[in-house]
Amino acid sequence: MSAKKQNVFFISDSTGITIESLGQSLFTQFPDTEFVITVFPFVSDKQEALRVITHISGLANAGHRPPIVFTSLADEALKNLFLSHDIPILDIFSTFIPVLETCLAAKASHAVGETHGVGSPLKYVQRIEALDFTLNHDDGMKLNDLANADIVLTGVSRSGKTPTSLYLAMHYNLKIANYPLADADFESSILPQAISGVRNRLFGLTLAPRQLFKIRQERRPASRYASLEQCEYEVRRAESIFRAARLPFLNTTSISIEEIATTILQRLKLRARVSGQ
Amino acid sequence: MSAKKQNVFFISDSTGITIESLGQSLFTQFPDTEFVITVFPFVSDKQEALRVITHISGLANAGHRPPIVFTSLADEALKNLFLSHDIPILDIFSTFIPVLETCLAAKASHAVGETHGVGSPLKYVQRIEALDFTLNHDDGMKLNDLANADIVLTGVSRSGKTPTSLYLAMHYNLKIANYPLADADFESSILPQAISGVRNRLFGLTLAPRQLFKIRQERRPASRYASLEQCEYEVRRAESIFRAARLPFLNTTSISIEEIATTILQRLKLRARVSGQ
Repeated sequence: MSAKKQNVFFISDSTGITIESLGQSLFTQFPDTEFVITVFPFVSDKQEALRVITHISGLANAGHRPPIVFTSLADEALKNLFLSHDIPILDIFSTFIPVLETCLAAKASHAVGETHGVGSPLKYVQRIEALDFTLNHDDGMKLNDLANADIVLTGVSRSGKTPTSLYLAMHYNLKIANYPLADADFESSILPQAISGVRNRLFGLTLAPRQLFKIRQERRPASRYASLEQCEYEVRRAESIFRAARLPFLNTTSISIEEIATTILQRLKLRARVSGQ
Repeated sequence: MSAKKQNVFFISDSTGITIESLGQSLFTQFPDTEFVITVFPFVSDKQEALRVITHISGLANAGHRPPIVFTSLADEALKNLFLSHDIPILDIFSTFIPVLETCLAAKASHAVGETHGVGSPLKYVQRIEALDFTLNHDDGMKLNDLANADIVLTGVSRSGKTPTSLYLAMHYNLKIANYPLADADFESSILPQAISGVRNRLFGLTLAPRQLFKIRQERRPASRYASLEQCEYEVRRAESIFRAARLPFLNTTSISIEEIATTILQRLKLRARVSGQ
């Protein structure tokens, strides 16, 4: 069964990341439709808006289904340009700003493109510092410096530590270190000495041995490292270390990096925040 | 002048990342208000919803301004629970799903928590591979392998190459390499040999010498590397290499990583996409 195709446009005076993300979220509710997505970022003047309108009108006239057009435009005149060219829009601003104006008893500034602006210079520096720290403390590097980490992730090789670390640094300005559990650590069930001093910032990642096996086979087929036996052994030992130390830990087998990151923040009760994010 | 404080809650049956991002975007329009944000992710049953309702009602009864509550809940019964406890909600689903149902002539599935799910296993693997590639090709590593990169970023040290590379890999599943321009490259205005073979995938980053000076002073104060003179020299030489090779390039001085990434995708006409992102 082939899915119905539906053209969708996201038009923003900034990056368009927020409205595309919102749209993608809504589209998961319509699994039988294939959404063909075009993003037009940085549409901030009349000329650029007219170029987009010409593109969309061209498609509509070529006999396609009417497109769905999401916009996030602070400038009323630009929004009206779409309407005056018979393009119906779902505008995020028009939908929510009037409600917020009422709640806040304040007028919106209608400033353009603030969402993914650089924000305050301080926040920008914090973000870059978090990323630098995280890159420098990946995979057990710089273990003498863990006291400066906001979170220390641990788990077997390929349990999702690095992607999760980078996501948390990028989006929450957190300094993340990660420590891979390896053969020497599995000889007992106590926390490796290298990370026992940061017990309250530790979070464990685990996954189904079968999944680990598949991932490792991609990387080093036919190695001991990638054997099902080794994967089962490492996962079993890692989980018994987590349990013995009463570490919070999470099975990452079928969840996304975003879900892992959100769960860690929730369980450790940590929420750093990026202004303008 | 102290800003007005306003409590805001984001309540989601998934990570809450999308609605928080939408909210943050709207809040930039009200610069005189300080938004105090609480995110409740993974609210997917009645018990969890009641816990959140108790928390919010407690604040409201303690004499605070009425909170603003954004929800993204696929389950009608959970939404109604808020309303029956006199908590008005701005629900993303109720706002947009009926419109989309009409456009698509289809019913929403009302499946919970799909947005940041892992999506298809193939897409997940692509994401991890993109991140692995990008980490392994940071800062001029593995130059013999650039043919496999989707984009090769270049620029002077601390022009934003690494954060931008990681963002593009994480959010667009793109394999990014980056090559730092250094002293030997500045002796002529031709593209360094190491990257001349991937001319059509190259993108340059530059920034104001003053800004570079500030960033480098933080890292290695009082070094030649961080002197204003050296920063001015490197930026001038890098830009003349970009111009001579007619490379697309971008000044990153006062823009965010999201804006840099979006601009690169737009200029190189590249848009990979993550399902379930």
